[in-house]
Amino acid sequence: MSSPKADVVVIRELIDNWAKAVRAKDFAGILAHHSQDMLMFDVPPPLESKGIEAYRKTWDLFFSAQPEPIAFDIQQMNIVAGAEVAFVTALMQCAEIEKSRERIKLDFRLTVGLRKIDGQWVILHEHHSVPAT
Amino acid sequence: MSSPKADVVVIRELIDNWAKAVRAKDFAGILAHHSQDMLMFDVPPPLESKGIEAYRKTWDLFFSAQPEPIAFDIQQMNIVAGAEVAFVTALMQCAEIEKSRERIKLDFRLTVGLRKIDGQWVILHEHHSVPAT
Repeated sequence: MSSPKADVVVIRELIDNWAKAVRAKDFAGILAHHSQDMLMFDVPPPLESKGIEAYRKTWDLFFSAQPEPIAFDIQQMNIVAGAEVAFVTALMQCAEIEKSRERIKLDFRLTVGLRKIDGQWVILHEHHSVPAT
Repeated sequence: MSSPKADVVVIRELIDNWAKAVRAKDFAGILAHHSQDMLMFDVPPPLESKGIEAYRKTWDLFFSAQPEPIAFDIQQMNIVAGAEVAFVTALMQCAEIEKSRERIKLDFRLTVGLRKIDGQWVILHEHHSVPAT
């Protein structure tokens, strides 16, 4: 069974706009389609961040560590959608400053879980990570 | 909207049995409900493993690093299910051997993406990670 085309289009646009909001440090845009009960598994500690306020703070931490201009680029994205629940997998790229003070690219993985609530797709969960070394 | 109760029960049992198969090093059990097109984001590198053969190899690596008896315990699990697509979030615990040769507990995060295919829930995606330090 394939995913409903209209839902895939809506979710792709939602994720594209969210990534664009991250690059613009636009907090209203970042939080525009998130549940109050958001569960975040982020790249840095803690193990989990529960609720929209804790989620918001993960972006303060992200922006404090990211060199300008902010990179937050979707390299590959796949969407699996039903009528009410969907998940997105993506390979992403941001940036970091090495000890040499050189800007380098950082690849990471992203999984997003969504539910359609009152006809609108809402993000309930994000999982961002890099492989452990 | 809440998740269909019967689907939540089936998915919970599927994930419980999968974790039990990991603890038993039972490869047939581990792979019993996975798609051929499985996409794995694992704790160690690589960034991604695509397809069921690559997924299988991530378990060879896991078992080569895990002290016996194998720990692979679900601490908390939440299931969001529609009629056709679902995702699971969980806090998990395995074990590792420190330089001191002491067995210590390792907390990690798990997200699983599933689709119902021909009436059966199938795992299309897993994302396992620890926070980066």
